[in-house]
Amino acid sequence: MNQDFAPAPPGPSAHTASHLALRRVAIDTYRENVAYLHRDCAIYRAEGFQALSKVQVRTNGRHVVATLNVVDDDRIVGCGEVGLSEDAFAQLGVVDGHPAFVDPAEPPASMEALFRKINGERLGREDFHAIVRDIAQRHYSKIELTAFVLATNRGEMDRDEVHDLTEAMVAAGRRLDWREPQVVDKHCIGGIPGNRTSMLVVPIVAAHGLLCPKTSSRAITSPAGTADTMEVLANVELPFDRLCDIVRQHRGCLAWGSTADLSPADDVLISVERPLSLDSPAQMVASILSKKIAAGSTHLVLDIPIGPTAKLRSMPEAQRLRRLFEYVAARMGLSLDVVITDGRQPVGFGIGPVLEARDVMRVLENDPRAPIDLRQKALRLAGRLIECDPDVRGGDGFGIARDILDSGRALTRMQAIIEAQGSRHFDHQHPALGELTLEVKADRSGVVTGIDNLQIARIARLAGAPKVQGAGVDLMRKLGDPVQSGDLLYRVHAAFASDLAFARQAIDRSTAYHLGQADELSHVFVEF
Amino acid sequence: MNQDFAPAPPGPSAHTASHLALRRVAIDTYRENVAYLHRDCAIYRAEGFQALSKVQVRTNGRHVVATLNVVDDDRIVGCGEVGLSEDAFAQLGVVDGHPAFVDPAEPPASMEALFRKINGERLGREDFHAIVRDIAQRHYSKIELTAFVLATNRGEMDRDEVHDLTEAMVAAGRRLDWREPQVVDKHCIGGIPGNRTSMLVVPIVAAHGLLCPKTSSRAITSPAGTADTMEVLANVELPFDRLCDIVRQHRGCLAWGSTADLSPADDVLISVERPLSLDSPAQMVASILSKKIAAGSTHLVLDIPIGPTAKLRSMPEAQRLRRLFEYVAARMGLSLDVVITDGRQPVGFGIGPVLEARDVMRVLENDPRAPIDLRQKALRLAGRLIECDPDVRGGDGFGIARDILDSGRALTRMQAIIEAQGSRHFDHQHPALGELTLEVKADRSGVVTGIDNLQIARIARLAGAPKVQGAGVDLMRKLGDPVQSGDLLYRVHAAFASDLAFARQAIDRSTAYHLGQADELSHVFVEF
Repeated sequence: MNQDFAPAPPGPSAHTASHLALRRVAIDTYRENVAYLHRDCAIYRAEGFQALSKVQVRTNGRHVVATLNVVDDDRIVGCGEVGLSEDAFAQLGVVDGHPAFVDPAEPPASMEALFRKINGERLGREDFHAIVRDIAQRHYSKIELTAFVLATNRGEMDRDEVHDLTEAMVAAGRRLDWREPQVVDKHCIGGIPGNRTSMLVVPIVAAHGLLCPKTSSRAITSPAGTADTMEVLANVELPFDRLCDIVRQHRGCLAWGSTADLSPADDVLISVERPLSLDSPAQMVASILSKKIAAGSTHLVLDIPIGPTAKLRSMPEAQRLRRLFEYVAARMGLSLDVVITDGRQPVGFGIGPVLEARDVMRVLENDPRAPIDLRQKALRLAGRLIECDPDVRGGDGFGIARDILDSGRALTRMQAIIEAQGSRHFDHQHPALGELTLEVKADRSGVVTGIDNLQIARIARLAGAPKVQGAGVDLMRKLGDPVQSGDLLYRVHAAFASDLAFARQAIDRSTAYHLGQADELSHVFVEF
Repeated sequence: MNQDFAPAPPGPSAHTASHLALRRVAIDTYRENVAYLHRDCAIYRAEGFQALSKVQVRTNGRHVVATLNVVDDDRIVGCGEVGLSEDAFAQLGVVDGHPAFVDPAEPPASMEALFRKINGERLGREDFHAIVRDIAQRHYSKIELTAFVLATNRGEMDRDEVHDLTEAMVAAGRRLDWREPQVVDKHCIGGIPGNRTSMLVVPIVAAHGLLCPKTSSRAITSPAGTADTMEVLANVELPFDRLCDIVRQHRGCLAWGSTADLSPADDVLISVERPLSLDSPAQMVASILSKKIAAGSTHLVLDIPIGPTAKLRSMPEAQRLRRLFEYVAARMGLSLDVVITDGRQPVGFGIGPVLEARDVMRVLENDPRAPIDLRQKALRLAGRLIECDPDVRGGDGFGIARDILDSGRALTRMQAIIEAQGSRHFDHQHPALGELTLEVKADRSGVVTGIDNLQIARIARLAGAPKVQGAGVDLMRKLGDPVQSGDLLYRVHAAFASDLAFARQAIDRSTAYHLGQADELSHVFVEF
């Protein structure tokens, strides 16, 4: 009730006749625009700026809105200068020293709608469009972004609001049109270490001829995202036009990133969701569907794993989320096929970029050491996508996918995509793993009845993944495998002693493997 | 569900043998500890730090936890250095260049409880103590603080949780003991411009002999807080020991601030509540009561104004808040007297530090130009406090307060307090007001039937208050006053043309005064 709104600042006017010299301040402020003014700067003293307030910096016919930090050191900014953090500086497109004008900026107009949401109200379509536009344009501070993420968390959003948010996130960025009737993609809601099916599904469906411009991301809270693992094999940071050429030529790529300006608000929101490890249904649906729709997808297969340590732990919960995805997708005109999968344990053997890349290449090469669960899951998801092809009969997709994989055509297509993106010449026969290792062995005999996804992910992250590509966890036993006391359960790889020490601490505190009798193994309660 | 907790970092160990030179980075980061490492720093590259992650900086037997910002400019920090923002640097108590050790720090342990609160659970006493300790020690980033404030907003907290939060906020800081049976204070929940009763109540009750170490603050979202207005008359930033001496000698002061380390978590939380203008019942109760209890108060009179543009707009709402205050105060052993007051319009004539100081001094001097509503309200609140004196009969307080004010004893006591804190030699006969003015006149004849608190506060803030002491709004008419078309309703004072332009825009967009017939005036529906 004590919210204090005020009009947007006036445009260029008489009182802003004095300018400052723009200065790039080389501090990475993580997608928050920050402006730096010296405490003794005449403009700071005169204009009634307040601590933590927003300023508008104008030059060159452009402007940015930034949070103001006050500086007392001439080496950072002097009197007569206005500093801008890296990202904000780049948005203005001028060189160091260019004259710029600084005005106080009132909070973005959409804050009024955000306050209504905080107070428990339902927002309308225009509200979400206004909020998302302001977020995409970096008009929100980290504090305001966090407030938005919390206010739309949990049960705070009905399904029409989730649709409106998704639509607004698509509208705030670029939307691709591939001018083909079917543009397919797959996605997983995450939470299962080693789940690198995309790197198999893309070459399989591309080899079948379907267009699959995979939008993949780096790890947010996991030990590796598809982009992190693909980066072991190939360059993943490519200019937008180059990526489009690769997709057109090879029918697929594994390198999409924020460079494409698809759903830019999502990239900004992630900067606060990541430190909080927040992932509410509303944000998950809006984030995933907005990226896919903006990328021009017409058909999406969505993998929702369930299991005791997965993001979703029960079938009713998974079905609720499925219905929300389906409702929003239908209203957005996206054909969606939700697959609820077995999320009781990590997929494959390796967890971490290099280890996962090794597993993927083994599957593509039909190597007998390839993890069978990764192969089977990828074939089933690829089969579902192939059935988007109107010439394929329902039920034939899996067989077609298997033929493509077994014949080596998937490997050939993957190699072509790797070459096109820029090969890193990964030697998967001799993968460069972290040389410091730690082996965890069974302290009793029995059958593996549980592998904790969260524990394994934590250990791999503490060991250095994904930043250290060769770091991670290599699983030697999976659910249902018999073990003898003293058998190796898993090996941790790290590059730095400190990382290994952190991983060891986590291992000492709680166990990632559960051993018991075969009949204690929980059922596979999902489709496959 | 994808929250990823890990053990606290190990203490000094072999892998942290290499140290960096500590460097003070003179950027005011508003109560968030920020550490700066150069992107090419060997430790940054080796230790697996992640963007926006926390680091622990150790030296001199102390440590701080800080959010990591990566820098690409040697002038800010070089390779081999670790920079710390002003506040964080000061916490370590060493000089520039001192060797320091940097380790990755996992999120504070209390984040686990915060995530439970975000997910809608009830927290226990130990949870709140752990969270508040971490907040007071600056272990939370702005993102994490915002998440806490949002998760405890609105109906998310039951009254026992509010008690536990209040208790934790007291426990996290210093608690004063004046060794007297009655230590009195008054407080208002805010929202009413010009409501400077404290500057009258303190000298009155101090002159009566009661100990009144008023804890007052600067403006958070208003055009002036008591500390801002008092600063027109006297120094308000005094060392803690000096303040205690003044209180003991004069039985009161008007200068309490965060220097006293009373409820330090509250000062940190305000840094995110302010930009969001958030003020939920739970946070209001915990913030106000924790400060008062920490300051050693035994008796508190609390002013809850209601009115169409006050924080609370109906009696049932005010009664709900009253009960919450009373419940927590009783459990904390604080004697609380809640007074629900008329919040239909600003109190007094002047809004802004100098204008309010002028009104206060006119009341103290029994000047005929003194605003009668400010005088009456202050006398009633002072009277309630005076009745805490066991020698005063119930009902006699008001008369005693009026005698103290009318006799000039309140003025004498105020002058003594001003001298003791350090007089600014304010000339209230010729107050230094912003020289740029704007007059708003009635466009019709009638009676003043409404004055919008929010509009008046907004105009005063846009005009420059409280940062520009002489800026603000001077009201010429109050509720019920008859006006002729063309009569002056209020005058805006500003020091800078840009500020006046902002205020003018706000005035043009909506009206702060409502004129009508006498019988349209809403009833005074409160005690006085």
